[in-house]
Amino acid sequence: MRCTIVTIGTELLIGQVIDTNSAFIGEKMNELGIEIASRISVADKKHDMLNAFIRATDDADLVIVTGGLGPTNDDITKKVIAEFLGVDMYFDENQFSLIQAFFEKLGRKATEAHKNQCFFPFGTSFLENKLGTAQGMLIKYKDKTIICLPGVPYEMKYIVNNGIIPLLKTSQSAYIFHKTIQTSGIGETDLADKIVDIESKLPENMDLAYLPSLGKVRVRVSGKSNNKLQIEEQVNRISDEISSRFGKYVFGYNEDDLSSTIGILLKERNLTLGLAESCTGGMIASQIVQVPGSSAYFEGGLVTYSDRLKHEILGVKLETLEMHGAVSEEVVKEMVIGTLSKLDVDVALSVSGIAGPTGGTDEKPVGTIWMCIGNKDQMFTRKIQTGRDRSKNIEYTSNLALNLIRLFLTDNLN
Amino acid sequence: MRCTIVTIGTELLIGQVIDTNSAFIGEKMNELGIEIASRISVADKKHDMLNAFIRATDDADLVIVTGGLGPTNDDITKKVIAEFLGVDMYFDENQFSLIQAFFEKLGRKATEAHKNQCFFPFGTSFLENKLGTAQGMLIKYKDKTIICLPGVPYEMKYIVNNGIIPLLKTSQSAYIFHKTIQTSGIGETDLADKIVDIESKLPENMDLAYLPSLGKVRVRVSGKSNNKLQIEEQVNRISDEISSRFGKYVFGYNEDDLSSTIGILLKERNLTLGLAESCTGGMIASQIVQVPGSSAYFEGGLVTYSDRLKHEILGVKLETLEMHGAVSEEVVKEMVIGTLSKLDVDVALSVSGIAGPTGGTDEKPVGTIWMCIGNKDQMFTRKIQTGRDRSKNIEYTSNLALNLIRLFLTDNLN
Repeated sequence: MRCTIVTIGTELLIGQVIDTNSAFIGEKMNELGIEIASRISVADKKHDMLNAFIRATDDADLVIVTGGLGPTNDDITKKVIAEFLGVDMYFDENQFSLIQAFFEKLGRKATEAHKNQCFFPFGTSFLENKLGTAQGMLIKYKDKTIICLPGVPYEMKYIVNNGIIPLLKTSQSAYIFHKTIQTSGIGETDLADKIVDIESKLPENMDLAYLPSLGKVRVRVSGKSNNKLQIEEQVNRISDEISSRFGKYVFGYNEDDLSSTIGILLKERNLTLGLAESCTGGMIASQIVQVPGSSAYFEGGLVTYSDRLKHEILGVKLETLEMHGAVSEEVVKEMVIGTLSKLDVDVALSVSGIAGPTGGTDEKPVGTIWMCIGNKDQMFTRKIQTGRDRSKNIEYTSNLALNLIRLFLTDNLN
Repeated sequence: MRCTIVTIGTELLIGQVIDTNSAFIGEKMNELGIEIASRISVADKKHDMLNAFIRATDDADLVIVTGGLGPTNDDITKKVIAEFLGVDMYFDENQFSLIQAFFEKLGRKATEAHKNQCFFPFGTSFLENKLGTAQGMLIKYKDKTIICLPGVPYEMKYIVNNGIIPLLKTSQSAYIFHKTIQTSGIGETDLADKIVDIESKLPENMDLAYLPSLGKVRVRVSGKSNNKLQIEEQVNRISDEISSRFGKYVFGYNEDDLSSTIGILLKERNLTLGLAESCTGGMIASQIVQVPGSSAYFEGGLVTYSDRLKHEILGVKLETLEMHGAVSEEVVKEMVIGTLSKLDVDVALSVSGIAGPTGGTDEKPVGTIWMCIGNKDQMFTRKIQTGRDRSKNIEYTSNLALNLIRLFLTDNLN
């Protein structure tokens, strides 16, 4: 099966919004063993949209369209799809009731615009969207399938995960099985070097992919076969072999992330965690609390952005700040000591650095970051040097900090 | 002039790499008043690439291609372009000398693979790439222009900025001008309702687009004309009219975001800000510090995730916590009072809620969030009710909290 992804919206063409929707859909279809024929983006203009639908259905058996399903005047996808199919539109009472119920729950009322939103091309069946008013639409066209999804990413993802993937799984021929090994603290090429021999003798029906992001690399092992049990066994066996080569750099599998891994480690050890963040400004804490139930081990964090608060709240000595500067090994150590006592937690992590784009010196250029992890018995510090991009620095540092917590909890820092 | 952007590479189709190249090129072309007809991504497979070149030259006068110019076996763009044009390839001695010189500078030697890289379709002229070995290529096809660029983002950007933009500036006709109105605290349809009349009588050469995200909606006004001054005046005038209808919901224009707007407001008023976050777990703080120079007004934040820390660090009374629960108007008020005194700041915001997906009660279901903003003279509280999706709740709440800070600073809460 081949799939083409069509994303609609002028904002995608002029660089106002980066098209992450098609990346998400492409990844999910690829996981299902569906080949992506192409990705097309056009403006919300009838002529260009029609052209895109003609080409997409030419190339592929499955066309997934995102955007233009909302209640405003620039949302014309349904009209253009009807024209493309050569069918009329009808008003769907049931869809309007769903929208009314959706707004009632929020204590608001559906408007006339929402009524307009309930006209659909004849032959539409629906894919439930629990998170918004625009349902997913599924339409048969000759021997092909067209699926339309809202452009709002979390709504689109909801329908892909809960509607499309289960549907497509049942219509698949060969079975595809993936296992993703999650690593942190090592680069893509260094990982590849560790498994050159494994990679070179990988069987025909198996595949390896490296998916790097800031401070993390995912390594995906995929296999395809008609024999479900056999391919699962094969993928698991090779993943285990690769994992043992990667060693301490592996923090989890598949959907695991650093925060959830840390959560499990803290719960197993019955420990509480506290944070003292400067340059990351709460980013580490906000990742920790993404995990449901994190209140069981996360007591809280102090975002001591100013030197004054580092001193007043965390008890970092004025002399230390003056002598070594806020971005120093000495200060991050005192931040950990202060966090352990002020928050009365078992484990504390601190970060202080120069996120940029300005504020660096010759001795401490932009991107100089110090971090410290410890408990009442021992502390470990790390210095890292990142680039000049503020957002990237913050995200990269947060990921390395989470990894440092993991390495500390698993006794991998000694 | 219309432009189509073709990006080549399997990694772009399967979500392994997010296609930021086409966003960058789209933005730059749009700034030049060149309409983007479409954006097409295909795998590095001959058949799909040929198809893409046919469609792209059908739609547009200018086709910009990225990817597949390197020295490895999967870099086939030049071969496929030659086939598309129906011309032979030739070896360019001059290009090979440039590559040899490039490597000499790095103290390395050009390889046989780099020699293979120097075969080009007849009729190619070059756009200099000072940052890598793959030069930009410009080829005339009938009355159209095809430009091929390397896929490495910084090399691509170098050639766009230094080669393509100066070239195109001299051949421009119509001018496109955009203004984006940034709003928060109101939905897309409610905004549309406020400007039905303006939207219905919008001139032919103008366009409105609504771009919603969690807690925010951007409204983009676009115009196109040969008369630069006139269209800028027209877009600005209509944007102003729309803005005044939207009133207090407008927080900025174009690239502004809530954090940068708050930063400006705080600096103008010479005020400092402190935060006390519970359910958002540092997300609000981390957005505040995304703004370079935020240390001028942001002192810090307390992520008091546990009740114990709300009491011990912020001084929330144990009786209040017991009587009203952590998610209550009384507790968020005491959190603000505690933050003002503990952090010694001028303005404080607090948030406490049930982010979910579990932990709700009949009285306080998942998604119940209280927030409070205040200074030493006055406090305002807000209760919001969100859904069951934890990540979405946290992001939505953070955006509304940032908006609440803005409304407080602009005296819009009385």
